[in-house]
Amino acid sequence: MNIGVLGAGQLGRMLALAGYPLANRFTFLDTTGHPSAGIGEVLIDTDQNRLDEFLAKVNLVTYEFEHLPVALVRAIEAVKPVHPSSEAIRVCQNRAEEKALFDRLGIPTPAYRLVESADELEAAARALGCPVVAKSVTEGYDGKGQAVIRDPAEAGDAWRSIGHPQLIVESFVDFVREVSIIAVRGRDGQVAFYPMAENVHVDGILRYSIAPLPDLDDGVQRTADEYIRTLLDELDYVGVLTLELFQTRDGGLLANEMAPRVHNSGHWTLDGAVTSQFENHLRAIQGLPLGDTAARMPTCMVNVIGREGDSAEILAIPDAHLHRYDKGERPGRKLAHVNLLAPTHGELLNKMRTCAALLPDAPAPRFSFE
Amino acid sequence: MNIGVLGAGQLGRMLALAGYPLANRFTFLDTTGHPSAGIGEVLIDTDQNRLDEFLAKVNLVTYEFEHLPVALVRAIEAVKPVHPSSEAIRVCQNRAEEKALFDRLGIPTPAYRLVESADELEAAARALGCPVVAKSVTEGYDGKGQAVIRDPAEAGDAWRSIGHPQLIVESFVDFVREVSIIAVRGRDGQVAFYPMAENVHVDGILRYSIAPLPDLDDGVQRTADEYIRTLLDELDYVGVLTLELFQTRDGGLLANEMAPRVHNSGHWTLDGAVTSQFENHLRAIQGLPLGDTAARMPTCMVNVIGREGDSAEILAIPDAHLHRYDKGERPGRKLAHVNLLAPTHGELLNKMRTCAALLPDAPAPRFSFE
Repeated sequence: MNIGVLGAGQLGRMLALAGYPLANRFTFLDTTGHPSAGIGEVLIDTDQNRLDEFLAKVNLVTYEFEHLPVALVRAIEAVKPVHPSSEAIRVCQNRAEEKALFDRLGIPTPAYRLVESADELEAAARALGCPVVAKSVTEGYDGKGQAVIRDPAEAGDAWRSIGHPQLIVESFVDFVREVSIIAVRGRDGQVAFYPMAENVHVDGILRYSIAPLPDLDDGVQRTADEYIRTLLDELDYVGVLTLELFQTRDGGLLANEMAPRVHNSGHWTLDGAVTSQFENHLRAIQGLPLGDTAARMPTCMVNVIGREGDSAEILAIPDAHLHRYDKGERPGRKLAHVNLLAPTHGELLNKMRTCAALLPDAPAPRFSFE
Repeated sequence: MNIGVLGAGQLGRMLALAGYPLANRFTFLDTTGHPSAGIGEVLIDTDQNRLDEFLAKVNLVTYEFEHLPVALVRAIEAVKPVHPSSEAIRVCQNRAEEKALFDRLGIPTPAYRLVESADELEAAARALGCPVVAKSVTEGYDGKGQAVIRDPAEAGDAWRSIGHPQLIVESFVDFVREVSIIAVRGRDGQVAFYPMAENVHVDGILRYSIAPLPDLDDGVQRTADEYIRTLLDELDYVGVLTLELFQTRDGGLLANEMAPRVHNSGHWTLDGAVTSQFENHLRAIQGLPLGDTAARMPTCMVNVIGREGDSAEILAIPDAHLHRYDKGERPGRKLAHVNLLAPTHGELLNKMRTCAALLPDAPAPRFSFE
């Protein structure tokens, strides 16, 4: 089984590492000219003339990046199976579509407005009540294309700084924490849910995830499971889906956004879960039975951003698992992550601090349950 | 760090899968003309003229197969670091050298004789008392080059069938079980020991390993640890070393043979230990701190030999981890292994039987502690 992957970054790399033991082979189609997967066969296609070659090599197609032209993915679907489908891409790459789907399925979200001018943005800020966050409806990634508006008078500057013809404006949620639910749906409709993770972002970039959570009510996990199940079933989805949510003071969940792929907030599953998100994605898209999503132990994922730490120091931490992406250092670039496991959350937090202290530029971590 | 591997089979493949997350890259030198690693860069060198090219690409060299010309490995050592060293290869590839080392270090073995003719073989069989097992001193692998002699009169036939100028003749040990100890030694002399495994061979081929053992006395593990530590220190060894032993009715251990590499009886560590033998080998040879060798849970490794089972059926077993080598089917060929984990040995044995029933040609497994 040769699996074609659209995109050739670290997510594709980790998919391949999970897929070799299933006797999968991988062909990546890179349109950026600077692939980093470093594994499998990588077709660099900056001139967009190698798609047929790519499709001739592969049995089915998946992707590590949802900001792909929908027309392209539909054209691929006419030739080879694509999982998740182009419909998942169409919805997930547009925040307006995504929110409309959440609304239709009864999944609560922060209050929001769609705006198409600076004036509309200012009016929305007034109506929702500042602070609000304005985001371009498309191509958002890791905090790019976003602005926080603390006063409606800032709307003009924000509009120009984002520079996009349609924005979504959302109420600032007074959340206790940011969480995510990752689930996987097989070709037969079977669904499995990972324990929810708490995610700490700094400057819009994920820095830490921890799962399972010591203080998460079972009912909250079940609510998240039901939200994501509804999405999976509605989209007749095959593969791993990620839903990021805000948890409010009353324990409620508000959907933020979703990603139709393996996700940074699920990297902890590589060492902390019985079956990783990467293996389960591959099992799903090939029609194999899903693996157990249970956690083996409390696990913390620490992202390595911009500059790497000393590998020897990191690996000296007991039950630390280093996952380097073999990329060059650059400010803000995701270079690696470290998964830390411990039998108790107290020990885990100590390990996390030890690890963070070894990383240049790592912010002081703080979780809601501390 | 580009790691050169002599040999390009499944052991090299699994080393590479463990090494990508450490940002290692891999170049394999294959002299057989039919490499199966299927990952990294593979140099096929059947005409033995690509060694310089190989050495120019790599930072250090290791191997997945010890039956290499010692002169070749010494020549490589003059250019690039080789771990484990050529001395380990020299000893491990010759049963006479190996037994002499065991004797010198006080590691008990079955009684043995070295013979260089059919007459000497017959005399040794009489002296040791039949049955005995005769083995060529070199190139033994998976039961090839061996014969069991049940009567001294069979010595002539056995001599001719093995067809080697020097044999080692050993008493047949009335063992309770075959076990192995795997340890890893860092460049700084630090040593870590895996829990011992019980190994079930059929027709000289490993079929099942299970670790940790429910009935293993701590003292037996400590004895095995000390035996292998003595070997590691004596050889100033860097990397993973495997020592296969017989456990006798009184709990004693007799050394059978050793392998200067990651070993099939350690494949359970991929899912069942905190750090796999593959990662620890790579950590050791790069001078990185060794990872924890503790078992997470009772684990059984089931080898898939000759023909593969249905992946979907195998993956439907809870906490089953399939590791396929992406090789063609052929009688006696190692094609894959399955690691099964369970919280108790009772559940583990049930899973093992379920798994064995899904594999064509899998013998009925039976462990000493059942």
